[in-house]
Amino acid sequence: MEYKLIDGKATATAIKAEIAEEVKAIMAAGGKQPHLAAVLVGHDGGSETYVKNKVLACEQCGFKSTLIRYEDDVTEEELLACVDRLNKDEDVDGYIMQLPLPKHIDEQKVIMAVDYRKDVDGFHPINVGRMAIGLPCFISATPYGILTLLRHYNIPTSGKKCVILGRSNIVGKPMASLMMQKCYGDATVTVCHSRSVTLKEECREADIVIAAIGIPEFVTADMVKEGAVVIDVGTTRVKDETRKSGFRLSGDVKFDEVAPKCSYITPVPGGVGPMTICSLMKNTLAAGKKEYYK
Amino acid sequence: MEYKLIDGKATATAIKAEIAEEVKAIMAAGGKQPHLAAVLVGHDGGSETYVKNKVLACEQCGFKSTLIRYEDDVTEEELLACVDRLNKDEDVDGYIMQLPLPKHIDEQKVIMAVDYRKDVDGFHPINVGRMAIGLPCFISATPYGILTLLRHYNIPTSGKKCVILGRSNIVGKPMASLMMQKCYGDATVTVCHSRSVTLKEECREADIVIAAIGIPEFVTADMVKEGAVVIDVGTTRVKDETRKSGFRLSGDVKFDEVAPKCSYITPVPGGVGPMTICSLMKNTLAAGKKEYYK
Repeated sequence: MEYKLIDGKATATAIKAEIAEEVKAIMAAGGKQPHLAAVLVGHDGGSETYVKNKVLACEQCGFKSTLIRYEDDVTEEELLACVDRLNKDEDVDGYIMQLPLPKHIDEQKVIMAVDYRKDVDGFHPINVGRMAIGLPCFISATPYGILTLLRHYNIPTSGKKCVILGRSNIVGKPMASLMMQKCYGDATVTVCHSRSVTLKEECREADIVIAAIGIPEFVTADMVKEGAVVIDVGTTRVKDETRKSGFRLSGDVKFDEVAPKCSYITPVPGGVGPMTICSLMKNTLAAGKKEYYK
Repeated sequence: MEYKLIDGKATATAIKAEIAEEVKAIMAAGGKQPHLAAVLVGHDGGSETYVKNKVLACEQCGFKSTLIRYEDDVTEEELLACVDRLNKDEDVDGYIMQLPLPKHIDEQKVIMAVDYRKDVDGFHPINVGRMAIGLPCFISATPYGILTLLRHYNIPTSGKKCVILGRSNIVGKPMASLMMQKCYGDATVTVCHSRSVTLKEECREADIVIAAIGIPEFVTADMVKEGAVVIDVGTTRVKDETRKSGFRLSGDVKFDEVAPKCSYITPVPGGVGPMTICSLMKNTLAAGKKEYYK
């Protein structure tokens, strides 16, 4: 089958250009420049890259961005004081705490302290709950990005069987919540995970497979039906001596053998990744415009 | 197949007796009697019955209960003022707004105004979100009751295929959220609804079917596999001239033909219904003990 590659990078670039146009118009009309702040703790390679890309995306969108750095030995009190300052700072429209945080910090406690009206990551329980109920809110970036991709490529989802691999709080669960809702995916949704006995059978029947388990090349050709749409959320760093960096990013899908069976498939990198950051930009713009909350 | 009837009424009675014992012990130790308040607007027959049963259950559990009534023409402002009083009333541990509210009232606005620490129905976005993430919270009563039944009857759920029919905010969605989580159902979860093309096929493969669509006798024998567990959440009033009341309650499952194929099945009435109220009692006890929130 001739598969079509879903180009997340190009889609994200187009959307960021649209956002930049809107920001120009807002500022030309005397409005405020959207401002995203990011808090980065420590020097984890992945986190450094993500935050760098977020700052870059802010530039592309015409946003103001602020990066706040702490060392690994920051105390919970210091971080909570930082959250409090960001909550009160009227110039900051939205901000993110780059996860994961060091183990001595209670991650949930920090997330709960974030003002949900500035929670552009959509991790606060109020945003999670409002999304589940179908109320306006910040939708967490990766699921939102995937939904945007599906729409951008006019891939029908209503009534289709969508199988989600993984039940994490930042991808699997919110993705399921979005895909089942009438106003979003409107699909028949199945969530599989490490304990699922019938995982392979579920995948084989799926019109859409969204893989978010973080196991390189887990989805093989025998698990995908002819004509399926496959979305690969995995980005595991795999050792690769041939690369300068010493590693490459591997998706959850064995691309070379799965792609020929698909109608649409995302590559890794260049698929879901750029869309995640793009969604964060959409959320920041919405925060600046006070679209969901006053 | 010899099916086993899941007796929700007996299970609820046993749990309420346990709660009554605990309340006695709390009060003997000088603790406070748990206090549930209910707000009832208008004279809808179903709502009247539910609230009457809730008040009765409070008596059985040794709780204090207060019923606050309004006529159909109550204004949103009056209801919000009532919510504010209940939020501030230190003697009230938890309270419920019996739904549905009249059409001129913004239901979500009222639910949002309820202090989430007293939201024993588990309808507030904070509780919905915390449940999705796996944090301690008030779990909405019907899904919580179904999970309690499955555990009470030692029905294995981990890794099993559970199909949920319906995606309502009070049953389908929170049920899916509970059933997929490691710490609760740990099952492979599929949510089907009116738009699902493969609804029948999904049901036929399910180890557990939870029907919550409100269409009398929708689930027929050809949709259920041999040995399945069937949970019927439906309680539609169907005209019945032979009854004094003029109606009978009909479930979503065609019981007579489905039951012989099941390992376990709930009847209607006497299955999920009594467990819903029982869960509300469990939540009220937890609220009184400040188990989830200070």
